Amino acid sequence: MQAAMDGAPPPTSPAGLSAYVAVSQLLGLTLLATTGAWLGRYRGGVAWHSPLQFNAHPLCMVLGMVFLQGDALLVYRVFRHEAKRSTKALHALLHGLALLIALVGIIAVFESHRAKGIPDMYSLHSWCGMATFVLYLLQWFLGCGFFLFPSASFSLRGWYKPQHIFFGIALFILSIASCLLGITEMLLFKISDSYSHFVPEGILANTLGVLLVAFGLVVGYVLTREEWKHPPLAEELALSMDFKTLTEGESPGGGSQ
Amino acid sequence: MQAAMDGAPPPTSPAGLSAYVAVSQLLGLTLLATTGAWLGRYRGGVAWHSPLQFNAHPLCMVLGMVFLQGDALLVYRVFRHEAKRSTKALHALLHGLALLIALVGIIAVFESHRAKGIPDMYSLHSWCGMATFVLYLLQWFLGCGFFLFPSASFSLRGWYKPQHIFFGIALFILSIASCLLGITEMLLFKISDSYSHFVPEGILANTLGVLLVAFGLVVGYVLTREEWKHPPLAEELALSMDFKTLTEGESPGGGSQ
Repeated sequence: MQAAMDGAPPPTSPAGLSAYVAVSQLLGLTLLATTGAWLGRYRGGVAWHSPLQFNAHPLCMVLGMVFLQGDALLVYRVFRHEAKRSTKALHALLHGLALLIALVGIIAVFESHRAKGIPDMYSLHSWCGMATFVLYLLQWFLGCGFFLFPSASFSLRGWYKPQHIFFGIALFILSIASCLLGITEMLLFKISDSYSHFVPEGILANTLGVLLVAFGLVVGYVLTREEWKHPPLAEELALSMDFKTLTEGESPGGGSQ
Repeated sequence: MQAAMDGAPPPTSPAGLSAYVAVSQLLGLTLLATTGAWLGRYRGGVAWHSPLQFNAHPLCMVLGMVFLQGDALLVYRVFRHEAKRSTKALHALLHGLALLIALVGIIAVFESHRAKGIPDMYSLHSWCGMATFVLYLLQWFLGCGFFLFPSASFSLRGWYKPQHIFFGIALFILSIASCLLGITEMLLFKISDSYSHFVPEGILANTLGVLLVAFGLVVGYVLTREEWKHPPLAEELALSMDFKTLTEGESPGGGSQ
């Protein structure tokens, strides 16, 4: 904590924020447990070099593209008073880990399709999911280039930052939507005859879908609530003063994260 | 135009906004045309008292829950300089029309299920779609109660407004996600054997899904871009001065729409 070094009391988080973050983490862990329960109880579990390889796909996508991606978005709200550089590094690291785990999940489905002779990339789920993954990778490289390695000018960073935030949240939402499509596909492939009879597997997988939506709603609420946005640190205020002299069309709040 | 009454030149919209709104409307019309093409070319068209009644469901949901709901959200960006009361009425009217059309679409699927002996409300699509519709109806009643009929106090309206905006955008996103789930379900019910062979119907319906995502992205971008948010009118500035004296915890930008 920066303020603690001056002997001042450590700055506190806004009221309510901690509770919402706690709920998001509880939902995130419930997501993972529900995915594990579905695959373990009804789909034979997960194994790599086996007919169960496909099951690594939903597990990795929920862990990487939803839970870790969501947590990577939350770091600026949770670590409000840390040095910006450390928070940025954690943000990039969590997204990098999410990308790696998602890559394993994508390899799982392509290898499993090849083993079973199923064509790739024909469904809406695959179109949405692959587009989301490729754009997420691109967003990660752009984010590193603009913000982590100080190669871009202040005015360029100021222009890119709101785009980075908008597309970051959009890709998180698209990831959740792709998961919902994947759940629907998997249920209609595996239990199409019994799904309409409200069998336990169908209800469990539907519940996983509802939990995914709930996680997205809570994370989205924490990210977009004005009062909870990241307060500018002393190091940033100095930069934004420079930035003001560089740009003309200043917009209120446009640069706040 | 208010300013025109004073003899001043009419206020202009921010650069770029008109282009994005135009693209959104082009995408919206393409959405409707693509839905019509899918149903007309591959699904036998739409008729009420017939086995084609089901087809009214996707058409009504795309028209009501996506196109009209999206346009209702855009009115505060498009009619920036009109009297707030007229814009509000248009906002409520478009949402009301969207709800009515969606209700017709919901009746279509329930009647069609009954005629064919198919159970209701077992799929993730139905869970997400029904939850979205019920919450959308609730949001509409709350919006009318808080903002259209001046029954709520200024402080209560000030508290509710950011919630109304957040849940409004969330319900729009959930509507699009529900449509994507519906497309996937319909394809796996109707062309499960040929879908993986990249048949034209599958590609057309997938394209409809991509267009739905694109419409959501453009509308979402227009709504959330800081520079394009609704400027406070003279009538609102007077109110917000009153509001400042009533509340303690003022947040920057928290009350801007």
